[in-house]
This record gives sequence, structure tokens and C-alpha cells, in this order.
Amino acid sequence: MSDFREQALHYHSHPVPGKISVELTKPAETVQDLALAYSPGVAEPVREIAADPANAYKYTGKGNIVAVITNGTAILGLGNLGPLASKPVMEGKALLFKRFAGLDSIDIEVKHNTTEDFINTVANIADTFGGINLEDIKAPECFEIEKALIERCSIPVFHDDQHGTAIVTAAGMINALEVQGKDIEDAIIVCLGAGAAAVACMELLIKCGALREHIYMLDRKGVIHTRRDDLNEYKQLFANNTDKRTLQDVIADADVFVGVSGPNLLSPDDLKLMADRPVVFACSNPDPEISPVLAHGARDDLIMATGRSDYPNQVNNVLCFPFIFRGALDVRASKINDEMKIAAVDAIRSIAKEPVPAEVLKAAGVEKLEFGAQYIIPKPMDPRLLPRIAKAVAQAAIDSGVAQIDMPENYME
Amino acid sequence: MSDFREQALHYHSHPVPGKISVELTKPAETVQDLALAYSPGVAEPVREIAADPANAYKYTGKGNIVAVITNGTAILGLGNLGPLASKPVMEGKALLFKRFAGLDSIDIEVKHNTTEDFINTVANIADTFGGINLEDIKAPECFEIEKALIERCSIPVFHDDQHGTAIVTAAGMINALEVQGKDIEDAIIVCLGAGAAAVACMELLIKCGALREHIYMLDRKGVIHTRRDDLNEYKQLFANNTDKRTLQDVIADADVFVGVSGPNLLSPDDLKLMADRPVVFACSNPDPEISPVLAHGARDDLIMATGRSDYPNQVNNVLCFPFIFRGALDVRASKINDEMKIAAVDAIRSIAKEPVPAEVLKAAGVEKLEFGAQYIIPKPMDPRLLPRIAKAVAQAAIDSGVAQIDMPENYME
Repeated sequence: MSDFREQALHYHSHPVPGKISVELTKPAETVQDLALAYSPGVAEPVREIAADPANAYKYTGKGNIVAVITNGTAILGLGNLGPLASKPVMEGKALLFKRFAGLDSIDIEVKHNTTEDFINTVANIADTFGGINLEDIKAPECFEIEKALIERCSIPVFHDDQHGTAIVTAAGMINALEVQGKDIEDAIIVCLGAGAAAVACMELLIKCGALREHIYMLDRKGVIHTRRDDLNEYKQLFANNTDKRTLQDVIADADVFVGVSGPNLLSPDDLKLMADRPVVFACSNPDPEISPVLAHGARDDLIMATGRSDYPNQVNNVLCFPFIFRGALDVRASKINDEMKIAAVDAIRSIAKEPVPAEVLKAAGVEKLEFGAQYIIPKPMDPRLLPRIAKAVAQAAIDSGVAQIDMPENYME
Repeated sequence: MSDFREQALHYHSHPVPGKISVELTKPAETVQDLALAYSPGVAEPVREIAADPANAYKYTGKGNIVAVITNGTAILGLGNLGPLASKPVMEGKALLFKRFAGLDSIDIEVKHNTTEDFINTVANIADTFGGINLEDIKAPECFEIEKALIERCSIPVFHDDQHGTAIVTAAGMINALEVQGKDIEDAIIVCLGAGAAAVACMELLIKCGALREHIYMLDRKGVIHTRRDDLNEYKQLFANNTDKRTLQDVIADADVFVGVSGPNLLSPDDLKLMADRPVVFACSNPDPEISPVLAHGARDDLIMATGRSDYPNQVNNVLCFPFIFRGALDVRASKINDEMKIAAVDAIRSIAKEPVPAEVLKAAGVEKLEFGAQYIIPKPMDPRLLPRIAKAVAQAAIDSGVAQIDMPENYME
């Protein structure tokens, strides 16, 4: 680990600090170039945009840039370390937007005084960008922040820790249930964790067919049930009318376990209590709720996913966020709505069911990948993700009436 | 002009909209690359920065990025067209930062509700950047905004419309007076215009030796004098205890005219009233207060500068802002103080007095440039500007105690 630590620090500091730069897309060598790029030529696009704000998409980079914005209150699994300490993560996200979807992306770290002040700050700068990816903002404030910003901004605002996680989880989960021969409508679901990702995952699973009364969500105090009086409004939505109180109470005969909590919170004995052919998503990172080795040792009829790249079935947000923004921006969607999220789920699911290109096998270092227990989610390096998800999302935006322009001709072909 | 308009719009829209992009400075191809750039590797620099905020300069791009921030209330000479319409100008400024000083730069357009709200928004996002260049913010709000942000931010905040203009004007002016054989202490100065640039130019000229009581500033109502009761606090500083009321009253026997107002406001007859060997800076853009052709027709003992690239002696902010930020950021100055501004003035002045490199002559399309009436200010393409100004500014930051690190070894050599 020390070697890896050194490597990570070296990567971030050499040959230059950080991971992203700003570069020119136009010539700027001659006096004539500069007369076009700046005064006096720049007055012409200014006048065009003043006459019609939509011209900002024609004459500036607005339509291709996503801001990655945080207040640093929930950095990775490290907690509230403040906005500045989150900068490497936000720059990393910007790097992924560019790497996977060709989107320009810049990080903005915001001092957090009050929730209202944070919302106001982000709303004030929003017109600069084509979209806003909120990141590493702690629950429950993240829900209010996202809701307010969606209302106040005319561009897509998307809290990836919630919805990116939810989309990839839902895609993998429904595929896993299909492999196990189970219907999502019948599945008893245990969700360990009640933060931003947990709430978003369960809400999206419900939109994909799961029944709210089949879901048992647990926070640090145990099962969230209707007789508790310490629940915020988001947890209240998952208050189950049940006498069950502990993880052991609810895991018994459950079909699905979703862990978005912390390391080693699910024991092999817990696992043995689950129904036949269970699905276990142990997404705590870097250490899952139960290690795949222990889990497969405990029973051999389960399908397992984690957040780790060194085991099969990695639940990785990068499977979604670059592409959902790509599709949303390319039809100038005013928001990312449920229809677009479900379109992303379906696109991810369908890619996993199709033959895997040779280059993906090579990048993954394996000889074969076939839809099944060891492969329910596509690999991050799969080149089909960009065109398929972006196009599905763009089409869903058009169909649901939030797209402001048509899909470009031969889009993603 | 129509052709130029088409060219400018084409430049801004082809082959991609806008002028800047975000690119990666680190490899991001393999699974291993991504493990370093994002989770889990990124946790290491996060921890380092949480332990010591100065590590943000080591592991992120903070130390090399300048935000160009506006509210769009005074775009070029076009007025208050709102933040979005200003985006091409702000991206243009970002392009110039990169082109001339290798600084990453990103534009941020801020919705302007109240001055306090604008200040708060910018202060909240300031830690993201190494420096903030304020741009195209109307007077008198710009003064309050800059002052408040300098107080609230730990990074340099610099309103280029004020200080960039002032630094280049002061450098050219003092050189011009030297050529004319006049001392700045004795010069009678008329300043037509009382906005941000006018106030900053006059304040800096005073710091360089001009006497406040020798300055006659005029706004739309005429001479600013001590009996007027309609002056904001910034104009009050230039209220002259005089009976003179009109431009003609004050231009008589004046040594210096500085125009930061509008086109064609100075007539040849006005010019004839000035003292022997006058200096005329007609900086209204694109049309100066008096055209050089008319001015030189009226008298042959003057030195003239304009904002235009097609006449000698262009007062162009790009001679200063990329380099003053370069120097400030390279020693991590907490602000850009008067000492650093005056160091920039002196560096620009001295470059103009030295032999001109062949490449500069070539770029300017002339055979000869020699310090004198036709050459008092360096050309924007002069490669000496970066090392000389940046180093002078960095040294001044160190000497005046605002630098937080030493000058890098062999800096700019």
C-alpha cells in the first residue's frame, strides 16, 4: 500500500501538479488571430448572444463543459475534509468526463457556510456551464441542494453520488435478478446504509419495479421502521411497517442485499440466512461489506458485485456519468429526468447481454466474458458505453420533452 | 467590416464552438492509470491536502489556474449585456492567459443580483483557483467588489480593466514624458472619463509621481471639482479645487491628455490648446477620442498612443495581465499590491528602451523600432515581456512580504 501511495502522490505531482489543464482550440499566434479571438472581433459573438442567449452554444464552449462542484462535506469515504481537500477528487472526475465522453470539465470547490448560501453560489455561476455534476456532498443536505438547483438552473444538475450510483446499481441488479431467475417485483431487498446513494438506489429500483414495502433500509440505529421518531424526511420514505429491528432480522430470506455503508458489516453467517440464489451488492469502498472471497466461501448460489476493480461485477459510476451528460448536453436537455435515468439503466443492461468486443477482453485481461453471474455489468473500458448510453439518454430527453434541440444527424454512429 | 464580422463569428464557431477546452495532463488510458487518477489513488493527495492546505499547490492545478470572472455589467464598450453575453470575452481572456503566460484559465460568468451577493459568490469559489482576474464589471461597483474580494480571499484578485489598463498606461506615459523631456511631477494631466480605468490610471500615475492637484478629471457633466455634490467617493478623490468647468478650460496648457471615454470627444482645436510637446493617450476603443491622423495633422510635437493595433503605441492590457499573474502565482503571492504593479510598470518601460529583437520587428511588420515618439510601449508579441515582467513582479512580491514561497531557482532564465 505504501508503494501505491507513493505512486498516487507521484502521479498527482509530476511532471506538473494536478491532472487537467486548459488549452486553446483556436489559433492564437498572429496579431490577426488575436484580433478575432479578443478585441475587436469578440464583440461580434457578444452581440449575437445578447440578441439570442441560445447563441452561447454556437460561439462559446458552454455546450460542452460540465462543472464538477462540491462543498467537500463527504469526500469519498473520508468524510468532511472541506472543499480544498476535495480538489484532487473533483479534478479526477473532470479527467474522467474528458477521457470517457470528450466533455470539457472543470472543478469548482465551494466554501460551505449554509445550505442556502451554497445553493445560491452554484445557481449564480450555473450559466457558465452546459451542465453541473454535484459531487461528494453529504446527506441529507445533498437532497435539498440538488432539488433547489434543478429548480433554479436551466441546465442539467445531477448529483452523481446519488444517481450515477443508482443507475449502475439498478442495471447490475436487474441483470443479476434475471440471471437468478427472479422478478424485481417479488424481491425482498435489504439496503444497509441510508445516505445519499442508498436513498437514490432504492428510489430508482422502485421506479424499475421494486416494491417499496419489500425494502428494508438500515441506518446506524438499525432497521428504519414506522415507529421511529428520529427519521429525516428522506429516511421516512423508507420507514417499513415491520417488527424487524436488526440486520439479522431482515436479511433472513431476503433476495437482495445492497450495501452502501462500511467495511465488513455483513458476515458469512448473515449471508447464509438469505433466500436461495441471492444477489449481494457490497459497494462500500475500498473495503466491501463482505469480501467476495468470504461470500463465495459461505455459499455458492449467489451473485456478487462490489465497488472494486479487482473482482468481477464492479459497480463503477464511470459506467454512467460521462455518457448521461454527453447525451443530455447533445440535445441540450434542460434537466436529467427519470426517463433519461431509466434509459441509461436499460442501455447499460443491454450492453452486458451482448458479445464482448475483443479490445474489452484485452483491457480486462480475461479470455472470455459472458452474461451471467460473473458478468452482469459492462466493463468501464467498453467503447460501446459512450454511443449507446448517450444516444438512449438523448432519445429519452427528446421523448420526454426536455430536449431543446433535435438529435444531431447520424448521432453517435 | 461585414467581412471581419463573418470572420470573427466563423472563428468562434468552427471547427468547435468557443476557444478553450479542458485537457488531461496525466495518462488516463489503463485501469491502473485510472486507479491512480481517481478512486482509490486520489485519496492520497486528499489526505495530504487535508493535513496541510499548501499541498493543494503540489497535487492539484490550483497554483496554475486563473479564473476570469465577470457579472457582464460593462462588456467591452458595449455596456451591460448580462453575464452570458460576456462569455466570448471571458473565454478570450482565458485564451490570452494561456497563450502569453502558460496559465490555465477558465471563465466564470456570475448572475448579478446585488453587489454583496456577487462578492459572496466569488469569495465562496475562490479557493478553487490560484488567482482571480475580475473583468468587465461596471464602476463604481467594481471598486467595492475588488476591495471586498481582496480582503476575503487569500489569493490575488485583480480587476484588469482598472489595473492592467493603469499599468500599461503609466508605463507608456512616463516613457512618453521622458521622450518629451518633461517630469511627471510637473505634468498637468487631463483625464477624460471617470470610470474604473480612469480612476485606476490616475491613482497609479500619482503613485508614480504625478501630483493629484495637477489632475483634472472629467465625467459626462464636465470637470470634477470640489463644489460638485453629485460625486461618488471615487470621483471625490479627484475633485479639483478649480474654477475650470469644461474640457476646453482644462486642456489649455495641459501636458497630458488621457482619454478613457468615447470616440471623437477631443477635437483638433482642443489639441492645439495644449502645452508644447504634449502627450495624448486616446484609449477609447475601437474609435479613439481623436484619430491619430487628425491629431498629427493638428500639431507635430505630440506623442500619441491609442488602444488600436494599427497605429504605433498601442495601450494593450495583454502587455501586463498574463505576466503579472504569472509572477504573482509563481511566488504564491497573497495579493497583487502597489509594489508589484509599479514593478510591472518599470519592467514594461525598460523593455521599450532596449533594442528590439528581430522576431518582434517581423511580427510587427516593420524594419525598425527605436525608443521614441513612435515607440514608447513594447509590442504584445515581444517574448521579453513574460520573463521580465513576471520576474520583476515576483521579486516585488517577495520584497514587499506578500510572497508565500521563494522564487524558483533560475526563474525565467
